[in-house]
Amino acid sequence: MKVAIIGLGLIGGSIAKDLRKKGLTKSIIGVENNNHHAKIALELGLVDEIHSLDEALKKVDLIIVAIPVDAARKVTQQLLLKIHKNQIVTDVGSTKSGICELIENHPARKQFVAGHPIAGTENVGPTAAINNLFNNKTGIICEKEKSSISALKMVEELYKQLGMNIKYMGAQEHDKHIAYVSHLSHISSFALGLTVLNIEKNEEDIFDMAGSGFSSTVRLAKSSPDMWKPIFEHNASHLTKALDEYIDQLHDFKTFLKHKKSEDIYRLMEKANDISRVLKGH
Amino acid sequence: MKVAIIGLGLIGGSIAKDLRKKGLTKSIIGVENNNHHAKIALELGLVDEIHSLDEALKKVDLIIVAIPVDAARKVTQQLLLKIHKNQIVTDVGSTKSGICELIENHPARKQFVAGHPIAGTENVGPTAAINNLFNNKTGIICEKEKSSISALKMVEELYKQLGMNIKYMGAQEHDKHIAYVSHLSHISSFALGLTVLNIEKNEEDIFDMAGSGFSSTVRLAKSSPDMWKPIFEHNASHLTKALDEYIDQLHDFKTFLKHKKSEDIYRLMEKANDISRVLKGH
Repeated sequence: MKVAIIGLGLIGGSIAKDLRKKGLTKSIIGVENNNHHAKIALELGLVDEIHSLDEALKKVDLIIVAIPVDAARKVTQQLLLKIHKNQIVTDVGSTKSGICELIENHPARKQFVAGHPIAGTENVGPTAAINNLFNNKTGIICEKEKSSISALKMVEELYKQLGMNIKYMGAQEHDKHIAYVSHLSHISSFALGLTVLNIEKNEEDIFDMAGSGFSSTVRLAKSSPDMWKPIFEHNASHLTKALDEYIDQLHDFKTFLKHKKSEDIYRLMEKANDISRVLKGH
Repeated sequence: MKVAIIGLGLIGGSIAKDLRKKGLTKSIIGVENNNHHAKIALELGLVDEIHSLDEALKKVDLIIVAIPVDAARKVTQQLLLKIHKNQIVTDVGSTKSGICELIENHPARKQFVAGHPIAGTENVGPTAAINNLFNNKTGIICEKEKSSISALKMVEELYKQLGMNIKYMGAQEHDKHIAYVSHLSHISSFALGLTVLNIEKNEEDIFDMAGSGFSSTVRLAKSSPDMWKPIFEHNASHLTKALDEYIDQLHDFKTFLKHKKSEDIYRLMEKANDISRVLKGH
């Protein structure tokens, strides 16, 4: 199998690493607009060659689109116009409704598999690529009935080789759920970072007091604005709802704090402790 | 030096481990109301003996109070009435104004050092105790001018031996800063856990989609309600202010999301990225 990866950042680069390590592909071609990233990806041996999109298309069976979700929509649309009938395209984006609607009636829709490997770190670019990023993670495939059997099989095989557990769902269902278990976490972390950076302007040395708890909750505030801007844009309606519910919970804490209702705070914390059940294995 | 540790949970137990490992004390006496914890602490070799508070007082030079902050206030008050003039008491609580005000005019105030080793995990009890928990962490000492030179020296030496970098500050300053860089993180995490547990009632398998980002931001929601209830109670006024500012930040995100002001969201994320500067070394 010959593979092209469009976008050699954390996700694209990490897929390349695993494909190579496991001997899953004869050659990996990278397509990367950022010349600096392209150069580093070659130096790191993530890919064998760097080509333009059109050049890459002449040589591969599978094209993996691993760029921010707004760019991914455009590129996927272009790709479906250009690929020949044995080529397969898949994406890795964190929102799925938009891209699925956009290409719903495309003649080559069957050659596309809407994917979302749920894995990542807050780091960006080819130097952020790591081995085994996807091992034991969940890989979502949306609207599988709209992909051809051979396209689906190729992407399922890819996910399995990367070590992922595959789950199937609708695009809207995906976007709703991921708003809660991923996108909301990012907003909560960005907002926490901003709150503490603000107070720091008036208070010296405050960060010397930050422990591992703070680091953990604020880690995602390091995430890339270029990646997250279009995700938030595409998933605005689900995310706004999740954010409303989150703010409601915070208001409860605030009200109980103000009125010294410690037993009510205790009860909320006890309920929240149930998250242990969920975090097992993460 | 002979040491008694009151409370053999995560903090007390981890201090015991390091003291023993580094040969800093001849014997460690544990005082622990929870019989099950006491038994485990002995089995794990965290302490040499378990005694009542009064028995322990007959044998030691230093008493470390490592129980929830409400209980710590009461026990510290009792201790200062009972100790002889060469004995030193220190605490490890995450709020400092309350305890400092309570014993401000106590005849034995000089024998007390108000401390806060900023270290921990979300786990509880003696089995949560780990080696090197305090290494390279910040240890806060409040109102050092109110402790005797010998008391201060003993606790400073303890902190240094545990590997901590010592910082000195007022109790109010401590409580204000820690509201932002610790207590707020815990509220944000508890509230995030509750939000996602709530939606889970109606949506199956949602947690299969939770990635490492969610785990990181929600980790503190596993924290002990018994430990955190009195902390939130004692630091309610600083924490309410921090929470207000946090909710304001979240409202900004929500407003920008609703009105599709993506450039404004981008700008907020860019500002939040400055947290990288702060997180170095954490």
